[in-house]
Amino acid sequence: MKITSALQWIGDCQGYLELIDQRVLPGTWSKLVCRDTAQLWQAIKTLAVRGAPAIGVSAAYGLVLALQQSKATDACGALKDLIQQAHYLASSRPTAVNLFWALDRVRRSAEQLVADQAQADKDALLAVVFAEAEAICREDVVMCQRIGEHGERFIGEGCGVLTHCNAGALATAGQGTALSLMFEAHKRGRSFTVYADETRPLLQGARLTACELQRAGIEVKVLCDSMAGWLMKQGQVHAIVTGADRIAANGDAANKIGTYSLSILAREHQIPFYIAAPSSTFDLSIENGQAITIEQRSAEEVTTLQGVDLVPAGVGVYNPAFDVVQASDITALITEVGVIEKPSAEKIRDHFSRSK
Amino acid sequence: MKITSALQWIGDCQGYLELIDQRVLPGTWSKLVCRDTAQLWQAIKTLAVRGAPAIGVSAAYGLVLALQQSKATDACGALKDLIQQAHYLASSRPTAVNLFWALDRVRRSAEQLVADQAQADKDALLAVVFAEAEAICREDVVMCQRIGEHGERFIGEGCGVLTHCNAGALATAGQGTALSLMFEAHKRGRSFTVYADETRPLLQGARLTACELQRAGIEVKVLCDSMAGWLMKQGQVHAIVTGADRIAANGDAANKIGTYSLSILAREHQIPFYIAAPSSTFDLSIENGQAITIEQRSAEEVTTLQGVDLVPAGVGVYNPAFDVVQASDITALITEVGVIEKPSAEKIRDHFSRSK
Repeated sequence: MKITSALQWIGDCQGYLELIDQRVLPGTWSKLVCRDTAQLWQAIKTLAVRGAPAIGVSAAYGLVLALQQSKATDACGALKDLIQQAHYLASSRPTAVNLFWALDRVRRSAEQLVADQAQADKDALLAVVFAEAEAICREDVVMCQRIGEHGERFIGEGCGVLTHCNAGALATAGQGTALSLMFEAHKRGRSFTVYADETRPLLQGARLTACELQRAGIEVKVLCDSMAGWLMKQGQVHAIVTGADRIAANGDAANKIGTYSLSILAREHQIPFYIAAPSSTFDLSIENGQAITIEQRSAEEVTTLQGVDLVPAGVGVYNPAFDVVQASDITALITEVGVIEKPSAEKIRDHFSRSK
Repeated sequence: MKITSALQWIGDCQGYLELIDQRVLPGTWSKLVCRDTAQLWQAIKTLAVRGAPAIGVSAAYGLVLALQQSKATDACGALKDLIQQAHYLASSRPTAVNLFWALDRVRRSAEQLVADQAQADKDALLAVVFAEAEAICREDVVMCQRIGEHGERFIGEGCGVLTHCNAGALATAGQGTALSLMFEAHKRGRSFTVYADETRPLLQGARLTACELQRAGIEVKVLCDSMAGWLMKQGQVHAIVTGADRIAANGDAANKIGTYSLSILAREHQIPFYIAAPSSTFDLSIENGQAITIEQRSAEEVTTLQGVDLVPAGVGVYNPAFDVVQASDITALITEVGVIEKPSAEKIRDHFSRSK
């Protein structure tokens, strides 16, 4: 079955962004059309589109929308609007670095054009920005594939693999990061069972990961997040693979809340813990995980579920969206360039300098 | 505010058992009347009444209902019916030992009467059985109070206390086990914050623990189970207190699924981990936790929530109701008799032999 990624740009540079509205999956597969940056900001903020790479690609296309909606008549004015909209889109979510990375990359390509060609008009700017967004999207597809190829060997025949949240096609423009390993292992004829943590509060594991794996014909079992440790204790988990939202220079990796606990439990049970993420998820400007901003989200995500109240009115809630896995608890980082075993600042520096 | 326990017997030995239907809390406080053992079996099975001590007391009263419904005309026939109904009630849930303990204790009192008094009639048997059930209930109230008094010193001024599931008044006939420590600390004027794991799949923490603490005027915050580790890492948790459903001779303790993970995370963060439970929760007939039967519950508990589907149809589920904390990870067991620090088979044996 065809893998369905999170987003698609429809048309040429005057086109629009189409997202799968992930808030209503798996019950409803509906498309959410973004024709301006406000719609996209809202879609990112409310997790209609989520997953670090998918947010990055969406934001890149968001700057195409920014230029479409710009009332400026010349390239300089349009660039100013683009930069302002880039700041606006960057404010939608604070943790995943791919968002800032993609916005920066598109902004730089626009600035370059204006700097290089004094005569460039707004149409030329739009063409350059659209080309850069398209490049980011195409590269994301290739990157997903490469991550899977580099990491599939960690998914052995007959093993149990635990994953958390959703790092699949729905988190990228391609076939995912963590799940790409599984799709590639499956393609090679291996049988294995994926245990998908349901991932409270928004249930990306139960709703999205289970759905993707089922559609791909891979055996998947859903469990509550609290059950993962006991499953490990029973010897049912042979590898843990997750994605990441930001990886610091030393290898500390932010990912969906609950990943930190899994990493401690993995160490306790001597289970290898892999993180699969593209280069764009690395933030080499920060020394370690302590510098990563952790998004706190609204209490309502925890207290209600599709209109049903789960918590008595007036009770406080703790709802961080992410946590940080220590580099020392990561068996290997899997990128599109290759595998970094036992990550450290030095190895990460080498990895990326070699790949240039 | 008055603490509301899980159950109440209404009337004399011809009366009936009234339960708070915990499936619909905190939205609805409705009473569930049990006038026969089939109704009670269903109430235990579906978790209308839950919590090891509350199940035990309910089952004791269940044998009063068994005698009421017995068609036997003499004590011997009625005793036979009682024993049969004790087996039936014991089949409702396999893990909490208090259920078997209470049924055994009532059965033994009935057998004793028939053995001692050849002339005893059915009414005499009913009187004895009712008296024993009433004694178990009264003792449970006192036991809760004592556990709180022995353990309140572990809830220090200004501290953060994490708990999992519900080991409060709603889990007992009294003021609870783990929460009794908090009620007693609060009574002594201490301020502290309780972090209540929501406790998927059935959300006893979000629904019941949050409700009880809020009503008592104790500050409570609800978090998803996956967030507890990160909260510990932030230094916000100074003690963890849970109840237990069965404690083996060596101190290994079964409790709601997720407790095992918490115990590993507690060790990692050097946070004391306390288990509060009455003597009736100890099963000295089993050497260690490996002999504890872990109840597997239906997939629907995980896949749906109040009619809302959370998981794609056809996806498998892993849903154990309990897990087991290793004795070596328990800082202290708190019973109505006192505190067993760093529990071991020897200390537990001594504890109970001294208390006789």
